[in-house]
Amino acid sequence: MQKRAITIAPSIMSGDLCNLEKSVKAIENEGLDTLHIDVIDGSFSPSMPLGIDTIKQLRKVTDMNFDVHIMANDNEFFIQEMIDIGVEQISFHLESSVHIDRYVNLIRKSGTKVGVALNPSTPLSSLDYILPQCDTVLLMLINPGFATDKNEKQVPYATKKVKDLQALIQEKGLDTRIEVDGRVSLETIPELVNAGADILVAGSTSLFIKERSIAENKKIMEEKIAEGLSSEEVTK
Amino acid sequence: MQKRAITIAPSIMSGDLCNLEKSVKAIENEGLDTLHIDVIDGSFSPSMPLGIDTIKQLRKVTDMNFDVHIMANDNEFFIQEMIDIGVEQISFHLESSVHIDRYVNLIRKSGTKVGVALNPSTPLSSLDYILPQCDTVLLMLINPGFATDKNEKQVPYATKKVKDLQALIQEKGLDTRIEVDGRVSLETIPELVNAGADILVAGSTSLFIKERSIAENKKIMEEKIAEGLSSEEVTK
Amino acid sequence: MQKRAITIAPSIMSGDLCNLEKSVKAIENEGLDTLHIDVIDGSFSPSMPLGIDTIKQLRKVTDMNFDVHIMANDNEFFIQEMIDIGVEQISFHLESSVHIDRYVNLIRKSGTKVGVALNPSTPLSSLDYILPQCDTVLLMLINPGFATDKNEKQVPYATKKVKDLQALIQEKGLDTRIEVDGRVSLETIPELVNAGADILVAGSTSLFIKERSIAENKKIMEEKIAEGLSSEEVTK
Amino acid sequence: MQKRAITIAPSIMSGDLCNLEKSVKAIENEGLDTLHIDVIDGSFSPSMPLGIDTIKQLRKVTDMNFDVHIMANDNEFFIQEMIDIGVEQISFHLESSVHIDRYVNLIRKSGTKVGVALNPSTPLSSLDYILPQCDTVLLMLINPGFATDKNEKQVPYATKKVKDLQALIQEKGLDTRIEVDGRVSLETIPELVNAGADILVAGSTSLFIKERSIAENKKIMEEKIAEGLSSEEVTK
Amino acid sequence: MQKRAITIAPSIMSGDLCNLEKSVKAIENEGLDTLHIDVIDGSFSPSMPLGIDTIKQLRKVTDMNFDVHIMANDNEFFIQEMIDIGVEQISFHLESSVHIDRYVNLIRKSGTKVGVALNPSTPLSSLDYILPQCDTVLLMLINPGFATDKNEKQVPYATKKVKDLQALIQEKGLDTRIEVDGRVSLETIPELVNAGADILVAGSTSLFIKERSIAENKKIMEEKIAEGLSSEEVTK
Amino acid sequence: MQKRAITIAPSIMSGDLCNLEKSVKAIENEGLDTLHIDVIDGSFSPSMPLGIDTIKQLRKVTDMNFDVHIMANDNEFFIQEMIDIGVEQISFHLESSVHIDRYVNLIRKSGTKVGVALNPSTPLSSLDYILPQCDTVLLMLINPGFATDKNEKQVPYATKKVKDLQALIQEKGLDTRIEVDGRVSLETIPELVNAGADILVAGSTSLFIKERSIAENKKIMEEKIAEGLSSEEVTK
Repeated sequence: MQKRAITIAPSIMSGDLCNLEKSVKAIENEGLDTLHIDVIDGSFSPSMPLGIDTIKQLRKVTDMNFDVHIMANDNEFFIQEMIDIGVEQISFHLESSVHIDRYVNLIRKSGTKVGVALNPSTPLSSLDYILPQCDTVLLMLINPGFATDKNEKQVPYATKKVKDLQALIQEKGLDTRIEVDGRVSLETIPELVNAGADILVAGSTSLFIKERSIAENKKIMEEKIAEGLSSEEVTK
Repeated sequence: MQKRAITIAPSIMSGDLCNLEKSVKAIENEGLDTLHIDVIDGSFSPSMPLGIDTIKQLRKVTDMNFDVHIMANDNEFFIQEMIDIGVEQISFHLESSVHIDRYVNLIRKSGTKVGVALNPSTPLSSLDYILPQCDTVLLMLINPGFATDKNEKQVPYATKKVKDLQALIQEKGLDTRIEVDGRVSLETIPELVNAGADILVAGSTSLFIKERSIAENKKIMEEKIAEGLSSEEVTK
Repeated sequence: MQKRAITIAPSIMSGDLCNLEKSVKAIENEGLDTLHIDVIDGSFSPSMPLGIDTIKQLRKVTDMNFDVHIMANDNEFFIQEMIDIGVEQISFHLESSVHIDRYVNLIRKSGTKVGVALNPSTPLSSLDYILPQCDTVLLMLINPGFATDKNEKQVPYATKKVKDLQALIQEKGLDTRIEVDGRVSLETIPELVNAGADILVAGSTSLFIKERSIAENKKIMEEKIAEGLSSEEVTK
Repeated sequence: MQKRAITIAPSIMSGDLCNLEKSVKAIENEGLDTLHIDVIDGSFSPSMPLGIDTIKQLRKVTDMNFDVHIMANDNEFFIQEMIDIGVEQISFHLESSVHIDRYVNLIRKSGTKVGVALNPSTPLSSLDYILPQCDTVLLMLINPGFATDKNEKQVPYATKKVKDLQALIQEKGLDTRIEVDGRVSLETIPELVNAGADILVAGSTSLFIKERSIAENKKIMEEKIAEGLSSEEVTK
Repeated sequence: MQKRAITIAPSIMSGDLCNLEKSVKAIENEGLDTLHIDVIDGSFSPSMPLGIDTIKQLRKVTDMNFDVHIMANDNEFFIQEMIDIGVEQISFHLESSVHIDRYVNLIRKSGTKVGVALNPSTPLSSLDYILPQCDTVLLMLINPGFATDKNEKQVPYATKKVKDLQALIQEKGLDTRIEVDGRVSLETIPELVNAGADILVAGSTSLFIKERSIAENKKIMEEKIAEGLSSEEVTK
Repeated sequence: MQKRAITIAPSIMSGDLCNLEKSVKAIENEGLDTLHIDVIDGSFSPSMPLGIDTIKQLRKVTDMNFDVHIMANDNEFFIQEMIDIGVEQISFHLESSVHIDRYVNLIRKSGTKVGVALNPSTPLSSLDYILPQCDTVLLMLINPGFATDKNEKQVPYATKKVKDLQALIQEKGLDTRIEVDGRVSLETIPELVNAGADILVAGSTSLFIKERSIAENKKIMEEKIAEGLSSEEVTK
């Protein structure tokens, strides 16, 4: 019985923003193929880490899969910009979207994978009809846009929400992937993976723990992932 | 009789965004001390070139003067972020500001130079009471946020507006500096400087013309500036 | 056992907007008594087909039932305008409403039938408490405001959503009618009616198919409706 | 078997706003320890009963527990103001909140009790993940901000919603308190209490019925509460 | 010395909206070549007379010049829609525009005449730099969007504002045309024309006075225009 | 030659908000007939001192003239509320108003005096056409809504702006009154009055200086006013 493939998606925000090419190459050299990129407009959340032009130039220096997480009020504008750049996956938040089905279609028609992102307290009932149209559901495990706030901790209901979503996906017979974002750490990886997480956004509490090299952190992450998978009763 | 000192403010947007440290050092090495940085929120204008975290990290690799131009709807948020980073000058747009005097004070109290920015068609009467409180007035000579649109040309009334502002500054006996931004080119520099421009935002049509090195472009710019200054009847 | 009465609601948008009186009379002459009218503000969706004054004047030339579908951000303004005009049914979108119960009451107190409209991906849980207060639930089967976009297709989960809603209505013992809007076509009518649809918004893919007259299209629609009803196990 | 303690929370809006100190003392003298205070911004709802500075000064004249109900669009601003004043409980509306988990944490970290408020038609599924983080859920039984509109009646589904919430709380094994607000009257108290209501916002239809003194009204309220509790099969 | 040519621009709103083709033909038959069309979004002003699709279909039945007056918050959206339809002149309001120069360019590049519209109290200083880029300035003489409110009268400073604008245009040596809109009546036409008005938006108080035919009203309007022109000291 | 009558308008915000009736009576007893009331919505400025219901009840306990200063984004809502309460003067901010002429008419038609309020940096050109329609122009001398911020000082251009406005009023031959608001203190009264101020909003730096009684402060204010008037060359 084959195990699920878990994706480690290093957050570009944890890199050296003044030497992005070098940072990205360092990640790429470890055999990682997905780059998680946050696009925040300063209005949905009080944060604006990276710019669009930065992503545009980044596109030219690497072939990694760009996994873009939009946290914005004007989703249509940012979705279109990301499609134009040519990223591989776009997730947008349901909380700021009125025309959800439309955005899903916009993304899909461009040949890009589509994800919907949910704030911690957003119920899964919001996925009732859109879930089968999505490749991924991104669950925020901290409040979006507050990653640099040291007081911001992973919500206590993180694992439960992943499990609930996993059950919903299975109930509907889908193969939607679950992406978890926010303080995904070495401590919580086994539990999150075991609950059903498929894509782990990796930042300062996992792949970029300063005491170790990226290579060393990656190795530990893989062990933690294996630990999470081993205790799985049924493969996803 | 001493000539005015004209500042060349290279736009960081013309640099290599994946290798910002290198780009900034290259500029710094030419003896330039001011870096022009656009902060756009995607809502005031459909553009979001750079992120706040990028500026934060940039602050650590160079001592150049950061001349920040905010084009946003929530000015207070971005002003506070820039003050926290420790930039040297902050300009914000009057068109999106209700509490102009308040923002000017916020910036000034932090020990930062303050500029107000005007869209091309915004009349100078908007400066009637706030002008004496400002270090700089930034005149947009193209529509803000559309710099990458090749069809966007410098407005035909650019020089006239600089002259009008220069006359107003002299009439009030002030020493406010005039900053010009938008397609400031080798062709227009003599005229703009002669009209009263003190700070030239330098991008792809001046300092970063691809056919020449930054050093060569800088030399030509200085000649053009001298040309503009030489025909000045009275020093500012 | 009596069959349900299905209402065909021709969309005024499919008529000749420069000769509305004639268009409406042509519909009326076929024995149809309901006219579906879209009110869009250009902001909820990028579309503004008809104006309020047009509806006001239309009110004077026909006694047909006006079935108004508001797609707007300021629901209270448009609801009040429609009440003042004297329409027979008003539906508004839950996605842009904070005071849903209040709008329902406003409409009901004026003696007008009330409907709530749901975007394709909006879950039915949003109806938990308001359903018993409504005469109709309007299910959008395409994204609202994009009817003229040829690429816009009926969502694949259309029939499932109608069925789910029908089950919910029966579970609560209500007689709420289900209105379906968006690419309701000759091909899908049997399935939609069979699933529980009571009101069919009729446009270019049914009543106004250009190859045939309205009378001919109507006849085929009625056959398709009968087909849908005949296979019904239990009457609604 | 011990009965639940029911809290009567007199609304400050029913007092004499020109002699607030006297009004509050009159309430306090009857042994009531909780004061319900509405904070409305004129935008969430077309009403703005009380100001922030009024609450600030009120804080100095009484030690009653301030139970603040924010009905606003900018929740973060008003939450912070209330924390600064030092109130005992803050409820905010889910309908105008994007960062719900964040607001809950903001309030909790300040040592204040936290409640989430729901408009009449808002489904309980919105509580799926946030319920265990809350001390109280405030159910609006009329549309918020329209208390002074005589035509505004308690919604017919009031008791059902309280019962549903009570069932949900028990199912999750929580001790969250249910607060009911809007035309809570002598007639409906037994039913609401019996259904699970723990905190009764008391206004012109209960504690402040003009024909009787506050003391007399309070006595009748207590009888009605006892009536509601006596028929309870299991204690909460 | 040649007299100025004054344009009568009948407002489509005064026509029969259920028989637009007939209404337009009736106007066309009187030799009038310009049709004034209001586009209001219900948000800039509480009114939404006509829809975009109506204008689209109108374009196909007449070759009259469409003189479109946008009263909206999202100017860029409506400007683009009107360009796509192929109208002859587009005016938009400065009060809701941040990127004025940009909108002027958008319109001009499409080969359409461009006008800027001013609310009654908006000062002419707002035109300082944009005036030379415009074909027309539309002065609202009543508050925009309230034309159907019988209490809405022409502002007492109407003639003064036209004179001031005429003086400004002459001072700058331009040939910008002045359009006046709002209760332009037989009584005020001589004065307005004499003050400098070039385009008269004609509605219920001039061309569409019910007691007379359009032909008769037009004849009287022309006499009034001649009266206004005859007393002109210098031709424009 | 008769001196101008200067009005002292005590700010209700300086009173005891828990004992408003008493505070107002104390002011009334000193022979003052005007009460200045700030209405702020928390959005135009981050402040919401008083509520509408408080003003409503205040109306019943005093016959003083209510001089209401609205600082809000939805001016029409608050203007209508104040008209309904029956206040004597309403001022609203130009910076948040699109339909200025309309609001002026709304207020005037209700028989209420009308004022327009200007933020410190707002130019007087904004008054070009509306000035003759106003009874009062209220000049903010601090940023509106920040009165309780101790760091907020009167703007250095306060007197100049009053003088400029006074010159404009005289040039137009009007008798508009000038109201000054924001840190109007014993020190600045002579200068402000001398420059042309007619109505002085009195707060903690004049009538309510804690070291003295209201009666004593009033007497000193009157002396300062007389000082300002005595040095006037020409009466207004």
